[in-house]
Amino acid sequence: MNSTDTSRLPLKVVPLGGLGEIGLNMMVVEYGDTILVVDAGLMFPEEDMLGIDIVIPDFTYLRENRDKVKALVITHGHEDHIGAIPFLIREFPIPIYATRLTLALVEEKLREHKLLERTVLHTVQPRHPFRIGPFEIEGIRVCHSIPDGVGLAIRTPQGVLIHSGDFKLDQTPIDGRRLDLARFGHYGEQGVLALFSDSTNVEREGYTLSERDIGQTFRQIFRECSGRIIVAVFASNLHRIQQVLHLAREFDRKVFFSGKSMVTNVRIARELGYLDFDPDSEATLAELQRLEDHRVLMLTTGSQGEPMSALTRMAFNVHRKLSIKEGDTIILSSKFIPGNERAIQNIINHLYRQGAEVIHEQVKDIHVSGHAYREELKMMLNVVRPTYFVPIHGEYRHLVKHKKLAQQVGLSPQNCFILENGDSITFLNGRAIVEKQAETGRVFVDGKGVGDVCDLVLRDRRHLSEDGMVLVTLVINKEHREVLNGPDVVSRGFILEETKPEILDGAKCLILDVLERYQAEGEMMDCGDFQLEIRRELKRFFQKVLERRPFIYPIVVEI
Amino acid sequence: MNSTDTSRLPLKVVPLGGLGEIGLNMMVVEYGDTILVVDAGLMFPEEDMLGIDIVIPDFTYLRENRDKVKALVITHGHEDHIGAIPFLIREFPIPIYATRLTLALVEEKLREHKLLERTVLHTVQPRHPFRIGPFEIEGIRVCHSIPDGVGLAIRTPQGVLIHSGDFKLDQTPIDGRRLDLARFGHYGEQGVLALFSDSTNVEREGYTLSERDIGQTFRQIFRECSGRIIVAVFASNLHRIQQVLHLAREFDRKVFFSGKSMVTNVRIARELGYLDFDPDSEATLAELQRLEDHRVLMLTTGSQGEPMSALTRMAFNVHRKLSIKEGDTIILSSKFIPGNERAIQNIINHLYRQGAEVIHEQVKDIHVSGHAYREELKMMLNVVRPTYFVPIHGEYRHLVKHKKLAQQVGLSPQNCFILENGDSITFLNGRAIVEKQAETGRVFVDGKGVGDVCDLVLRDRRHLSEDGMVLVTLVINKEHREVLNGPDVVSRGFILEETKPEILDGAKCLILDVLERYQAEGEMMDCGDFQLEIRRELKRFFQKVLERRPFIYPIVVEI
Repeated sequence: MNSTDTSRLPLKVVPLGGLGEIGLNMMVVEYGDTILVVDAGLMFPEEDMLGIDIVIPDFTYLRENRDKVKALVITHGHEDHIGAIPFLIREFPIPIYATRLTLALVEEKLREHKLLERTVLHTVQPRHPFRIGPFEIEGIRVCHSIPDGVGLAIRTPQGVLIHSGDFKLDQTPIDGRRLDLARFGHYGEQGVLALFSDSTNVEREGYTLSERDIGQTFRQIFRECSGRIIVAVFASNLHRIQQVLHLAREFDRKVFFSGKSMVTNVRIARELGYLDFDPDSEATLAELQRLEDHRVLMLTTGSQGEPMSALTRMAFNVHRKLSIKEGDTIILSSKFIPGNERAIQNIINHLYRQGAEVIHEQVKDIHVSGHAYREELKMMLNVVRPTYFVPIHGEYRHLVKHKKLAQQVGLSPQNCFILENGDSITFLNGRAIVEKQAETGRVFVDGKGVGDVCDLVLRDRRHLSEDGMVLVTLVINKEHREVLNGPDVVSRGFILEETKPEILDGAKCLILDVLERYQAEGEMMDCGDFQLEIRRELKRFFQKVLERRPFIYPIVVEI
Repeated sequence: MNSTDTSRLPLKVVPLGGLGEIGLNMMVVEYGDTILVVDAGLMFPEEDMLGIDIVIPDFTYLRENRDKVKALVITHGHEDHIGAIPFLIREFPIPIYATRLTLALVEEKLREHKLLERTVLHTVQPRHPFRIGPFEIEGIRVCHSIPDGVGLAIRTPQGVLIHSGDFKLDQTPIDGRRLDLARFGHYGEQGVLALFSDSTNVEREGYTLSERDIGQTFRQIFRECSGRIIVAVFASNLHRIQQVLHLAREFDRKVFFSGKSMVTNVRIARELGYLDFDPDSEATLAELQRLEDHRVLMLTTGSQGEPMSALTRMAFNVHRKLSIKEGDTIILSSKFIPGNERAIQNIINHLYRQGAEVIHEQVKDIHVSGHAYREELKMMLNVVRPTYFVPIHGEYRHLVKHKKLAQQVGLSPQNCFILENGDSITFLNGRAIVEKQAETGRVFVDGKGVGDVCDLVLRDRRHLSEDGMVLVTLVINKEHREVLNGPDVVSRGFILEETKPEILDGAKCLILDVLERYQAEGEMMDCGDFQLEIRRELKRFFQKVLERRPFIYPIVVEI
């Protein structure tokens, strides 16, 4: 790194998502008039985001620098890295760069959203750098729970940035494609300005198991099972799917694929040669019904207890075509993602009710993580040996712990930065400055609406969800304020009215009391005041008799 | 057991809660005209029970047999065993039997609910049987995460029932009170008709650690900490609290107790001699502010991320008197209960933002379970050697696995029964029959209302929470169906109206279209049809433009 050339412009990196949260990964790399976007992921809604379908990053910073936005580079094909692409491309029709499999998954997604013609897709070959404006970018192969992931080396006029992508070390990966440690080391030798590295598993000591290690547990289960086997797994976990398909061949079971994303991903992976699977081994639904139990393997989605998934519908016995039967063994081969445990446990209980046996990661080693543990994170830090370090992909505590880890391997605390979404880190002649850069946040997608549900709307939903609502309708004569119709009081989600008819009757009496005041006060009280007063009285009343705070909406019409 | 005496009546056991779920523990033991109730616990609401405060068992079966209900026996003082007592006692003013500490906690609860005079409290001494009608009952000491727990031996004319309570084996309990294996064995030798045993941890292999084992980890943390230490723990976990208090003495830290239940439980336990703690070691709030950091220990509730707890308020920096500072170490010394993970992780992130270090069970051994693991469960089965076995306290999968475990240690499958709440098992002359006995379910407590929120009301709350609501008001002339006022369309929790004013405008136009039809149709269409038609049209419209399904409530007033 030559720090004396003062003609160079500052290099700016602005994370727009994925720092302080898991998911929603997106990062801006900016030099002069060029903005490169790395990843465009979604996040699945948290419990208090009522009614929200997905969450995407806030593109405001990109909008403010619209002309600069030149390209999108994707590290791998998980939803938390590609899920926001349709929303991004709709606004910014920029070219997309990714490896073969990743690109195929992106293509599928864009086709679904009818956006394929809005962009150009470029295949990234690891170890084959490509140029975007002032940047020379190279994909560096990493291992992860989806094939074809890469980290990125981004050569800029201010020095080289390394973005780890999501990675783990796996010395015996299923597809034989190891993390390209030599290439990370090559850049480390040359000098790396800054490393941005995945923090997801910084709380876990040691090393991840190899994907191959769990194969033995699977084989044992296949050996002992005489009934049908149903494996639920993320459709993107093609390594896992490959292992299971190998076992199906070994134990002479035919395979039925269930779930839309499972079918799609398996098709794409087979077309591109990422899955080794004999088409004759696939069972149709009709064959499935005829096969003896010990010849059946089903591969399905729904390992997170997703309400509409095939597995959930089977568990609750409401699937139109498939059902669980006594003697089935269901393997949930994924992590219980925090927030989903209750849903998953619920499915498991129902599967047991149907007479099945269920095996999951909490009782057997049938899952390994795709994210590096502490020792692997240290190795990345030591191989890349960056001047500056910014932990990414993690909640706040992960970022703090990753920063501490970096110090353990010798980085100076002054050179490690905890950034949050919207912060920028600017590199100029070997120095780094962190600032608050952009207003950024999360954008909610609800049905077809993007961004039209904000915190205010969610607050109302939460209020409505807590104690329901009470509607009051009253039509009165404008002149004399006499009742023409009502007061009618109806409630929803508030109380089963039959059990306590006195509640709404009491409410009516109160409204009539307020009306008397309204009639008496004349000009001292207008209709707005009257409605406010109704709300206030009812609020007090419901609090007193029920300790509830429903949403109260009085509608007074004067004619 | 003498199975030839035909003068004996059948003995019936009916679980009313705790089978097929964790929490809500309650069981009826019935012989002739006597019903003995074992435990009366609550459950905290699951995510989809919107706005519900707590859940209690359905007492219908007791109501139908009101005259028979003679006494309540409590195994230990956890909320899932005592939390429904006020609701039970309000309806059934029966005497309560429990050990000293348990009884003191029950007394406190009844006093709060102003129900103390409605019942009589009897102290149970382990190994001192007492009689209730045809039953002779003996408390058998067990270890658990609260002191003074017992299992029960219930001698009946049909034989002896053993109820394990919640138990674990702990060879080195903090209070020196071991599980009374000899006494369980004594009954086992004499012959036990049926064992009802805790299934909570049947998925966990081996043995639980002793409570004392985690003391070393705690000591290590105390040794290394130079800042303040804040331990968050269940207020009922007096063993844990005792260990921490011993360490406070050892490391010369003064103790500040925070959180209502913490203060109450510590007071009760000290009064009864269940906590060894020098009153001079307690710090007042004023002292707390003055003490040097390395002299401070805070014991607080909120280890589950409860929104109103002291710890949560400190984490979000909204506590009026206490705050977190750089260098604090917070120890969350309890399990992450499924369903609470997101809330807990959220707190942890905020604590890190405040500059604190957080230690929890997922990074260090600072928690042990109070429920027996598989080897301990086997030991209970082997010592008690029952003729019949019924797994209790567990979700469905736990019950299935516990049943299988019982078969592993030699019980015959025909003698192991999976019961669900409301099923009965009847013993008559050595035989056992399982039947569906009672309609039972869960009763929701919301504020002051008990049972007035049912599934129907919850469904409305869920609907309202998903996409909010849209209200339509229209006043028309009865005779000519001309508009006198409106249509007005307002929404809550549906959409931020400013972002898409065309949505509600579009809705208004649609309503006017429907009105035209209403005006044209005359008697063919009444006002009810009109409102239905408005709802139908709007539903279709919102689905089309936004893919949302708000709650639509049209109010048409004809005057």
